[in-house]
Amino acid sequence: MTSPNTDPVDAYAAREAGASLARFDYEPDALGPHDVEIEITHCGICHSDLHLIDNDWQTSHYPLIPGHEIVGTVAHKGPLVTHLDLGARVGVGWQCGSCLHCEWCECGDENLCANIVETCVGRHGGFADRIQVDGRFAFSIPDALSSEVAAPLLCAGITVYSPLRQHARPQSRVGIIGIGGLGHLAIRFARAFGCEVTAFSSTAAKEEEARAHGAHHFVSSVDDAALKAQRESLDLIISTVNSPLNWRRYVNALRPNGVLSFVGALAEPLTIPTGMLMARRRSVTASPIGGRVAMREMLDFAARHGVGAQVETLPMSEVNTALDRLRRNDVRYRFVLSRD
Amino acid sequence: MTSPNTDPVDAYAAREAGASLARFDYEPDALGPHDVEIEITHCGICHSDLHLIDNDWQTSHYPLIPGHEIVGTVAHKGPLVTHLDLGARVGVGWQCGSCLHCEWCECGDENLCANIVETCVGRHGGFADRIQVDGRFAFSIPDALSSEVAAPLLCAGITVYSPLRQHARPQSRVGIIGIGGLGHLAIRFARAFGCEVTAFSSTAAKEEEARAHGAHHFVSSVDDAALKAQRESLDLIISTVNSPLNWRRYVNALRPNGVLSFVGALAEPLTIPTGMLMARRRSVTASPIGGRVAMREMLDFAARHGVGAQVETLPMSEVNTALDRLRRNDVRYRFVLSRD
Repeated sequence: MTSPNTDPVDAYAAREAGASLARFDYEPDALGPHDVEIEITHCGICHSDLHLIDNDWQTSHYPLIPGHEIVGTVAHKGPLVTHLDLGARVGVGWQCGSCLHCEWCECGDENLCANIVETCVGRHGGFADRIQVDGRFAFSIPDALSSEVAAPLLCAGITVYSPLRQHARPQSRVGIIGIGGLGHLAIRFARAFGCEVTAFSSTAAKEEEARAHGAHHFVSSVDDAALKAQRESLDLIISTVNSPLNWRRYVNALRPNGVLSFVGALAEPLTIPTGMLMARRRSVTASPIGGRVAMREMLDFAARHGVGAQVETLPMSEVNTALDRLRRNDVRYRFVLSRD
Repeated sequence: MTSPNTDPVDAYAAREAGASLARFDYEPDALGPHDVEIEITHCGICHSDLHLIDNDWQTSHYPLIPGHEIVGTVAHKGPLVTHLDLGARVGVGWQCGSCLHCEWCECGDENLCANIVETCVGRHGGFADRIQVDGRFAFSIPDALSSEVAAPLLCAGITVYSPLRQHARPQSRVGIIGIGGLGHLAIRFARAFGCEVTAFSSTAAKEEEARAHGAHHFVSSVDDAALKAQRESLDLIISTVNSPLNWRRYVNALRPNGVLSFVGALAEPLTIPTGMLMARRRSVTASPIGGRVAMREMLDFAARHGVGAQVETLPMSEVNTALDRLRRNDVRYRFVLSRD
């Protein structure tokens, strides 16, 4: 064990709901036996960070330090951390802890643990020079992935990888709704899985980009006739959007045994006739991030297939510029803040 | 091949939507090479028969001969029927044909075939002295099952067995909503699977019966506080009802990875917040009858475990009495018409 750095952590925090971020220092806790202190080099910006800043989920405490797509190097570690060396390049996502002994944790589904610890909910996140987390939720970043490209994999990446891992085979016909931070990674992963990929977007101008990410087909997500024509064509549809769409058309786009999986929670409840599910034994589900085994597997798979996020990197000091642009959807496809 | 019986078939038919059944004769078709003619001894009455009589699904043609829980003996067979001997005791359910060459048929999911042939939709059903069907959809009845007890297995039984087969392990905690023709069989099957079984009913007086069928627990399906207390307690819930319930409570009753499966289509669309699915990676699905492999497996399993329907047997000549009582839900739990 090395001595923890007792200097204040240099971070960016919102002082109240919806506020711009401002410099904020805090004293780090003593490093626990399983903890690592990570010197942060990069942190992606996720839409969830805006929800946290705005207290949309009524879970935020202020000052609030967002940031949960963290990449950096292990600067200090507790005496029980044996799997990570000092200096190792690691990543941390939305989850940084769980009970580790319930049946879900023991099966590698830590993301389903009732006692999940979230990186920037009730604790300080990654828009900072460093962070302390349980080392069991810090993941080695493969050499083949640059830190910029890897950072968004830790939340956006695992979020879309998990339902593919659960439901897709290489033979599957997969639809991805929304071509943004999550959607572009979903297309890239689905293509790397070997699937036939259909991208759905409300923005016709995104067709070329969608095909560049790997989509074989492009369908307007709001063109009713085009959606109707997709009837019984897809084995898996992953929705990354939270805007209302004609969900019945998407359910009808599922083949027998098909699955519609939401990775973005809809503002309005979903309304589906059960007969539409029954006719072809279709399912509707939703998937939250992913467990530790899936995270390691995803990073290895991404490295092997060259799947990374398409990012725009800004210095962390320009975090408010990035957040403002994200609020306007002015990003292709993920901002990553850099401390270099 | 034996010569087909060219005598008219002696049946009971509704002449118009909602009508009582009356005697009706029709000339049988020539027996096809894969067909069998079954001398019917027993036919169960399913709620679907009432829907067909009433043309609730706009698929009915009159005169309409209901009946799709058929047991009888093979009286004649086409030259390509090699798996059934003359005199064999067989059963036929809701489905009596499919394309047999699509990917679903070839995987044993004939119930998902787009060209499913339904026993009494667009053709004459089992409230009759005999029926001709494709022998590939006639299933040997194990000796251990009496014909009365076996008849309802062919529709009600396979309907509830299929989602158990797909989603339940012996360790699963299974909820069954509704204790009627389907529900009592679902409880019996789930208990025989080795599951911990919770029965949900709006009728408090059914608790004793539910426990006699094998339920470990009984919960009022309409007591909101009791439902709330079931939070995250079940791996699989099978709903056999079509009445509106507080479905959010049932979704919340699912544990992580839990599945809510409808085998009765709801009159009103289901409305569920996607966040409620996402929190615990829950799914909502629906299941239609079952394929041929599942049907044979179900009959064998039922024979081995002594799972049969609890029936009230009436002569087929009293079909209208049975239908009238079924309309009033005055049956424990399935009527079977007998030609003996």
